[in-house]
Amino acid sequence: MGAPVERTRVRRLPDKQVRDRAALHGVLDAGLVAHVAFVHDGHPFAIPVAYARDADTVLFHGSTGSRLFRLLAEGAPCCLSVTLLDGLILARSAFEASMRYRSAMVLGACSVVEDQVPALRTISEHLTPGRWEQIRPPSRKELAATLVLALPLEEWSLKVSDGWPETSDEDAGWSPPTGVIPIRTVRDEFIEGESS
Amino acid sequence: MGAPVERTRVRRLPDKQVRDRAALHGVLDAGLVAHVAFVHDGHPFAIPVAYARDADTVLFHGSTGSRLFRLLAEGAPCCLSVTLLDGLILARSAFEASMRYRSAMVLGACSVVEDQVPALRTISEHLTPGRWEQIRPPSRKELAATLVLALPLEEWSLKVSDGWPETSDEDAGWSPPTGVIPIRTVRDEFIEGESS
Repeated sequence: MGAPVERTRVRRLPDKQVRDRAALHGVLDAGLVAHVAFVHDGHPFAIPVAYARDADTVLFHGSTGSRLFRLLAEGAPCCLSVTLLDGLILARSAFEASMRYRSAMVLGACSVVEDQVPALRTISEHLTPGRWEQIRPPSRKELAATLVLALPLEEWSLKVSDGWPETSDEDAGWSPPTGVIPIRTVRDEFIEGESS
Repeated sequence: MGAPVERTRVRRLPDKQVRDRAALHGVLDAGLVAHVAFVHDGHPFAIPVAYARDADTVLFHGSTGSRLFRLLAEGAPCCLSVTLLDGLILARSAFEASMRYRSAMVLGACSVVEDQVPALRTISEHLTPGRWEQIRPPSRKELAATLVLALPLEEWSLKVSDGWPETSDEDAGWSPPTGVIPIRTVRDEFIEGESS
């Protein structure tokens, strides 16, 4: 990564900060939905988007009819966060109860991707590998209605919590079961169907 | 809900907007992690937090040592988003590929919860029902290090996508399998352990 900049330095629980770019890639590649934060009329918003990583860029898309996507397309400052929840950490105390997670945050501003089709294909292949070859590619009209945005992986942070519950002297006399409830996202069997 | 205000009116895909407060409660009760967006030094941030709903309030907590939580505690405008991904919608075209999701967004400003223990209990019971009775309650020192924040469910939106893939005339001649891959979050079996 580039030099860690001040605003992506992890202050809370700094031992959880991971500076390895390959680990960042791994988290982004494992997620399906990101939350993109931006400021509109002075108020912050966080909206969910499907996305994919392409080398050192995160790609996502929206409608040209969306004011919020147009704002992002104009280069408004944004923050894209991907959080993977991996488990619940059950400690002896309420204070030490926590979560296992991998949390990536990318700060910056988006640019508009002019070469839309390869980018849309990258997003499609991330979500549903192999699907792109089977489906009708976007028409000129559909592309005209689509904004594809790219956010570079320049200023980012990654926080990983993968440990076990901590115990302190204060916990003497308290002995509930301690450990981790793993949490996973699973894809169930495909259900065929179509809107009529 | 209160009168829908302009900035939470769903403009894109307005047929997906749900105005039923019970449905909002249901989505918040089904989620474990929210993303909270706020502005710090002119830049938007979205950070993940564990949370719980208590009647018409969302509760979450952080450290008094966190600049970002102190900012929220001071009443900075924020947006709390909870997104549940329910499936991938596989259409005949790239353009109609989409997701099944339930996405709640709450706008407002937080207040500090003075009566911390019941609020922390609510969060604990949301994440790990029944656990609170077994664990050591927070000490005075731990409470002094904890900020509990409440965001009222006053200005909010809920978007639900639960349909099937759409087909248009342009898709003639394209007949890949269409339907939905359901996505679920599962809790695996508890693994006992403790940090040594």
